[in-house]
Amino acid sequence: MAVELKGAPVAKAIDERSRAGIETLLEKGVAPTLALVRVGAREDDIAYENGAVKRCERVGVSYKKVTLPADISQEALLETIEDLNRDATIHGVLLFLPLPKRFDGDAVRAALSPEKDVDGVTEGSLAGVFTGSGKGFAPCTAQACIEILDHYGYDCKGKRAVVVGRSLVVGKPVAMLLLGKNATVTVCHTKTAELPAVVRGAELVVTAAGKPKVVDGECFSEGQTVVDVGINFVDGVMCGDADFDAASQKVAAITPVPGGVGTVTTSVLVNHVVEAALRANKGL
Amino acid sequence: MAVELKGAPVAKAIDERSRAGIETLLEKGVAPTLALVRVGAREDDIAYENGAVKRCERVGVSYKKVTLPADISQEALLETIEDLNRDATIHGVLLFLPLPKRFDGDAVRAALSPEKDVDGVTEGSLAGVFTGSGKGFAPCTAQACIEILDHYGYDCKGKRAVVVGRSLVVGKPVAMLLLGKNATVTVCHTKTAELPAVVRGAELVVTAAGKPKVVDGECFSEGQTVVDVGINFVDGVMCGDADFDAASQKVAAITPVPGGVGTVTTSVLVNHVVEAALRANKGL
Repeated sequence: MAVELKGAPVAKAIDERSRAGIETLLEKGVAPTLALVRVGAREDDIAYENGAVKRCERVGVSYKKVTLPADISQEALLETIEDLNRDATIHGVLLFLPLPKRFDGDAVRAALSPEKDVDGVTEGSLAGVFTGSGKGFAPCTAQACIEILDHYGYDCKGKRAVVVGRSLVVGKPVAMLLLGKNATVTVCHTKTAELPAVVRGAELVVTAAGKPKVVDGECFSEGQTVVDVGINFVDGVMCGDADFDAASQKVAAITPVPGGVGTVTTSVLVNHVVEAALRANKGL
Repeated sequence: MAVELKGAPVAKAIDERSRAGIETLLEKGVAPTLALVRVGAREDDIAYENGAVKRCERVGVSYKKVTLPADISQEALLETIEDLNRDATIHGVLLFLPLPKRFDGDAVRAALSPEKDVDGVTEGSLAGVFTGSGKGFAPCTAQACIEILDHYGYDCKGKRAVVVGRSLVVGKPVAMLLLGKNATVTVCHTKTAELPAVVRGAELVVTAAGKPKVVDGECFSEGQTVVDVGINFVDGVMCGDADFDAASQKVAAITPVPGGVGTVTTSVLVNHVVEAALRANKGL
């Protein structure tokens, strides 16, 4: 049976790092603060907001809920973001995406200052992930995958890694982060021919396809480490992108769903806020 | 014996596309113009400048050489770039890189307007390549690889593609462009274990390692298409990153060096200038 790479201990370790940063900041009179900008009341957004707020409270990061009516204008939303950019007491801004379709999402993302872009949605952050320059922040979920691997001592160097999925939120950035850790990285997607054969050949598998059990029993081989980013529901039961039961009979290690990557994401978010506050107050 | 995918016919076809665009622009009273910004007199820079100038003349794009003394200050260089940004008669700016070490290269690149960044060196262009948004321009050499594949009717969809090299100039952008064409893309580099086995398993191979014959006879298999980006010199003779003789015994098709990718690059550059001018004058 595969070892379960649980998220909780990883989250705990990240929170400890965050607390150390907060201590440094408080000594300088800075209280790291996250603004949560939500338009309307989508259930998913509220669930993630609640998780983020809870994590902020547990770790000791301040937060400010900026809840906007569903019928707010593009202009008013842009103004809100620009106000947050200018507000030196706000260090990170989490913008719940996607926005309702009537908004120009590109323009809204572009309005956010890359220095406060703690979930990697701006051009500056995406370019930073692509180039490996360290500018901005990687999307939290992509970073969470790396945190799990680091925490459990997985050395990516020279490993054959396969990422299933090419979204800008997870697939592409996690591929770049793995490349930065010297893995040989393959990106698979819906147009990939013979997916099972490609995935079987990997030593490290990151599934970020967003489809339940699309990485099935045929895809796994002995000795693999599997990081499952998927959060899907089948008949009301949460499951990942990987067929966990099939995988855990074969692979060496796998993150469970729930209890894996999803458990780590808000800790990464809060850590990014602390990091943003540290960067902003370097001179103090 | 492998089919040789020569660059010259590809360049010719791109130039035709450029000429069609130029005609449209001239009707609007716009003469597409490239500024070539060179600091000092590095031999490589001058060689590429000469190639670019010749291509401009052949295709009918105007150009302006901005040659700066080797001891120019960072401030004066930034001012030069900002002047070019503001100059509505300049549509594209080619900045010869790398700059001498005493410059802050990041700051200089950041000063260039992404709209005029015809060789994909700004954050805006790199983010555009990463996200596939079409913003800015891909680096010319990376785009040249895609032009060759397109010209010879190679359908990337679902193909296993391997890119050897992860530079920001070729490796990473070409990987993103291939992903955008629905290939299953693997990026290899100096830390890749068992490179020959990984490359052998690919249907499409792009070599952008910058080392002579580093992709050797062990790396090739039947039916492969090889795009060789390398320009190296061994005992004064130009050669690619692939062992051409070994490859051409085995693979289905390969770009020669010289006469392959390198032949296409300036045509892509000039085409980007025309495209930049078209974008800038959409409203006319």
